[in-house]
Amino acid sequence: MACYEIFVTYKEGIFDPAGETARHGLEQIGFEGITRLNIGKFIQLEVDASESEVREMCDKLLANPVIEDYRIEAR
Amino acid sequence: MACYEIFVTYKEGIFDPAGETARHGLEQIGFEGITRLNIGKFIQLEVDASESEVREMCDKLLANPVIEDYRIEAR
Amino acid sequence: MACYEIFVTYKEGIFDPAGETARHGLEQIGFEGITRLNIGKFIQLEVDASESEVREMCDKLLANPVIEDYRIEAR
Amino acid sequence: MACYEIFVTYKEGIFDPAGETARHGLEQIGFEGITRLNIGKFIQLEVDASESEVREMCDKLLANPVIEDYRIEAR
Repeated sequence: MACYEIFVTYKEGIFDPAGETARHGLEQIGFEGITRLNIGKFIQLEVDASESEVREMCDKLLANPVIEDYRIEAR
Repeated sequence: MACYEIFVTYKEGIFDPAGETARHGLEQIGFEGITRLNIGKFIQLEVDASESEVREMCDKLLANPVIEDYRIEAR
Repeated sequence: MACYEIFVTYKEGIFDPAGETARHGLEQIGFEGITRLNIGKFIQLEVDASESEVREMCDKLLANPVIEDYRIEAR
Repeated sequence: MACYEIFVTYKEGIFDPAGETARHGLEQIGFEGITRLNIGKFIQLEVDASESEVREMCDKLLANPVIEDYRIEAR
């Protein structure tokens, strides 16, 4: 059994609607001065699989390689 | 007490990363021929509030008027 | 080419964390009296596929039949 | 201007529907042996604000303290 942490983020230039909506909400309640707010995924995975198999899981379903980058850390 | 259904969708031309990721996943498992896949929100709300108050909830937090449209239906 | 609208909602009794977070946020900014707030998905799909193929897409990837219900409407 | 990374995860025992749906999808395409799959948020924030103000943003809108934990790292 292996544990992995996976960080999925949008590639440079990809629009992040959830981040925009959160920024909008924060501004509505008085938080100013936000110059960047991006919401990616923080995935915690316990699986009987090698890192290269986890990479395959990311490429096929957990991320979208066309618009997202991801980083895998074995724990 | 009133019941509302709220449909939140991206405005024309706004990029939908969750939709793109789902399309990518579907293509990975063999579904071809998808020309559009957009993932919006379908919100079910029971609240002691008028429709104009629900509109305010949408404008402030449930949606982002800059990038999203929404439609409220009282049930 | 066919157009479908798909409504994905949690089954009765399934916890909806995004709905809870939105309710928490709304209460923080002064909206009281919410007795239910569930956030499901509203999917718009254009695809060269029959409704039974769309059902298969839902069962495999767009929804999780264990915890979610979905309704497909051909447009 | 300060940069923060925020990691939002569900508290122990809180059901994670997005994680369940991803696990279901991975199993559908042949990945077995997953004993845990949780999908939290990885937020990247650039803002003219102190860490205690960022904590307030988390408590009010970016996370839901009732069901989620978060960790803030200044960069």
